[in-house]
Amino acid sequence: MVSIGLPQLMAAVQAQRGFVSALFDRLRQDGLDEPGVSRDPYGAGEQRGHATVAEAAAALGLAIDHDAAANLYMTWQGQDPQARRVMMGSHLDSVPHGGNFDGAAGVVAGLAAVAALQSLGVKPMPPVTVMGIRAEESVWFEVSYIGSRGALGTLPDGAMEARRRDTGRTLAEHVAECGGDPAALAAGRRYLDPATLRAFVELHIEQAPSLVAAGRQVAICTGIPGNFRYPNAVIEGQHDHVGLPRRFRHDAAMAGAEFAMALDAVWEAHEARGVPMACTFGRFHTDPAAHGLTVVPGAFHFSLDVRAYDEAVLADLDRQVTAIIAGIEQRRGVRFHLGPKARAAVGPVDPAIKAVLARNAEALGIKVLELGSPASHDAAAFAACGVPIGMVFVRNENGSHNPHEAMTIDDFLAGTAVVASWLADSVA
Amino acid sequence: MVSIGLPQLMAAVQAQRGFVSALFDRLRQDGLDEPGVSRDPYGAGEQRGHATVAEAAAALGLAIDHDAAANLYMTWQGQDPQARRVMMGSHLDSVPHGGNFDGAAGVVAGLAAVAALQSLGVKPMPPVTVMGIRAEESVWFEVSYIGSRGALGTLPDGAMEARRRDTGRTLAEHVAECGGDPAALAAGRRYLDPATLRAFVELHIEQAPSLVAAGRQVAICTGIPGNFRYPNAVIEGQHDHVGLPRRFRHDAAMAGAEFAMALDAVWEAHEARGVPMACTFGRFHTDPAAHGLTVVPGAFHFSLDVRAYDEAVLADLDRQVTAIIAGIEQRRGVRFHLGPKARAAVGPVDPAIKAVLARNAEALGIKVLELGSPASHDAAAFAACGVPIGMVFVRNENGSHNPHEAMTIDDFLAGTAVVASWLADSVA
Repeated sequence: MVSIGLPQLMAAVQAQRGFVSALFDRLRQDGLDEPGVSRDPYGAGEQRGHATVAEAAAALGLAIDHDAAANLYMTWQGQDPQARRVMMGSHLDSVPHGGNFDGAAGVVAGLAAVAALQSLGVKPMPPVTVMGIRAEESVWFEVSYIGSRGALGTLPDGAMEARRRDTGRTLAEHVAECGGDPAALAAGRRYLDPATLRAFVELHIEQAPSLVAAGRQVAICTGIPGNFRYPNAVIEGQHDHVGLPRRFRHDAAMAGAEFAMALDAVWEAHEARGVPMACTFGRFHTDPAAHGLTVVPGAFHFSLDVRAYDEAVLADLDRQVTAIIAGIEQRRGVRFHLGPKARAAVGPVDPAIKAVLARNAEALGIKVLELGSPASHDAAAFAACGVPIGMVFVRNENGSHNPHEAMTIDDFLAGTAVVASWLADSVA
Repeated sequence: MVSIGLPQLMAAVQAQRGFVSALFDRLRQDGLDEPGVSRDPYGAGEQRGHATVAEAAAALGLAIDHDAAANLYMTWQGQDPQARRVMMGSHLDSVPHGGNFDGAAGVVAGLAAVAALQSLGVKPMPPVTVMGIRAEESVWFEVSYIGSRGALGTLPDGAMEARRRDTGRTLAEHVAECGGDPAALAAGRRYLDPATLRAFVELHIEQAPSLVAAGRQVAICTGIPGNFRYPNAVIEGQHDHVGLPRRFRHDAAMAGAEFAMALDAVWEAHEARGVPMACTFGRFHTDPAAHGLTVVPGAFHFSLDVRAYDEAVLADLDRQVTAIIAGIEQRRGVRFHLGPKARAAVGPVDPAIKAVLARNAEALGIKVLELGSPASHDAAAFAACGVPIGMVFVRNENGSHNPHEAMTIDDFLAGTAVVASWLADSVA
């Protein structure tokens, strides 16, 4: 139970309006790169953002620290320094010409929640740390969760050799330039021991319009999806003359279309039953070297990403893909060569954290949606190490990864109030 | 009615086995370009083929002539020189590294039919001309029916400026080099007046395996398809994040897949009702500059060729395409931009010629299929000018436009006997 009344808590969060507006404005200036904002990871934009946030945290009396990945830790000391740490936060980088809120909102929310509890005279038992995470957006280095996995010692082998798409320089060079220690990261040395963490809670703007469509401000995350992926699949058919009758064809493109429609029907059926999943054929194409108006396509290339929130659903989808392919191969006289397969485990949300977030939101008078996260988030890196996680999504128009993100401060404060009420419970 | 018995006619055609085998062998040597045969139009390979065929025709006592397109006319003089001319023939060029029979078989069949009737003492009333046609394969100059349309004065504007893909030189230069008159062709001067032609009959190897599948030697053509084409169509959707739920997507690739499957279902239904048509998405692809594993495709490109043998069927397909697109645009929130549309009229086979070919085949004991031509042929250029046409297809394994064409001389002689029996009727 919250040891303070929820109306007072709500008022204390609302009182942070000036603080958060000013902080968002400074962050926008730090990253301004019209159109939109570019907080390039391990580069000038992200550096300025980290400095701004650290300065705001220091003004709240928080202790500042960094790790080998140059992540930013802003800690409100607890009365019991040995108690397991309560963490909040998100990433401070952005995509090129992105919006101001994707990532940064989760850091600002953590600071605002701390500031609100401070204003109510709360003295936390455990240490509370707001984390400004580095380099979450995989568009730059094509490695995901660099900051959070760097902190947890779970970066994949070879990550330090990844080159930033625009600079062409390695992650190791970029990390060193920002005061990090690439050798420690490469050795897998961790800064955070999962056993010492009680929870990690991340607030993030919603990247889809579910909340806009539902007319609600806040959603409680029910899970971060796992996936299986075929980045480079090919269907082998036979190039033939445009006049060839249907029954003699081995049309690789038609086989690709049938495969896509079959998975789309599976998806539609899941959606109708309320079981969230997604499948995406990001690349879906005939062979540019051989295709033409009067040639039946003999080869078809595609990438496939299938995601869901439940390992059993994923496993069933995997079986359905195999069965669908077998049928198409037989009917159309083609061969699927799926190539390498990648997998990511489902990132489970901690049921207790989710329950507290939902219950407190209701008590605060904030009607929420329960939403599976469509995208991946740093919280998944914590979940993968066994840290209990929770996520709160804030309504946002126009999607993310573009300059037109539109989150209102009202909605942001509603989401922050939900996080702050959970924090108040957690530090009592 | 045939004025001579069909058994004698069959024997007379069978007696040409040595003549046709030797002629095919010489043509193969003329064009040899391992793997396969290259009789490059208005080039050395085609030139040697023309010389070989002209020599064989001269040995049969036929008169040799050429026109501005350097087509070869081999004429058996008629007793009534003013009677409308009866024509047979096909093209003597090939695709690069093609087979020996695609085209040439129709010229050899014409000469063999004449030789067979000569051996039976027939004196034709009308003149009978076997035509060795230039440059039918559009792969070289990307202009179709150059020889036949040149003879008929129906080449499109600008054709003389087309450049041969391999030499880079213009059609005008190539024609002049082979003794033709590019200026006369450019001016649209015709050598053949359609009003003076009684019929044009073309024998051609089948380019699909219908006869192989049916276990028959010969097919009578029921028509040459017309088509409508969209060479450069685009579907406009919206690029989005791979995690976006289905109901919010505007996935251009899924829209393309649905369109292809809808047309495939239409095709399957036509096939089930025995109404021949074909549709081909030769190019079918996401945008190489924007696509990727984690991006919902916002653009999708395709080419479409829809063909059928009946203008009413084509018009109905055109309406169905429009209706299918409207449904997909509404359901998937995308826009189709079809771009320029090309049309070609159906090439109707003359019912009387078809009936004679079919009746005589039956009387000869040759079981035939009735087949729509999947591909286009020189005969269509004659049909477009109002000349009554007929076509006979001969069984051929392994398709055409490749070195593995496989027509047996037995099957060829069966097809030639059908043509010869029609010729006997026509010249009486």
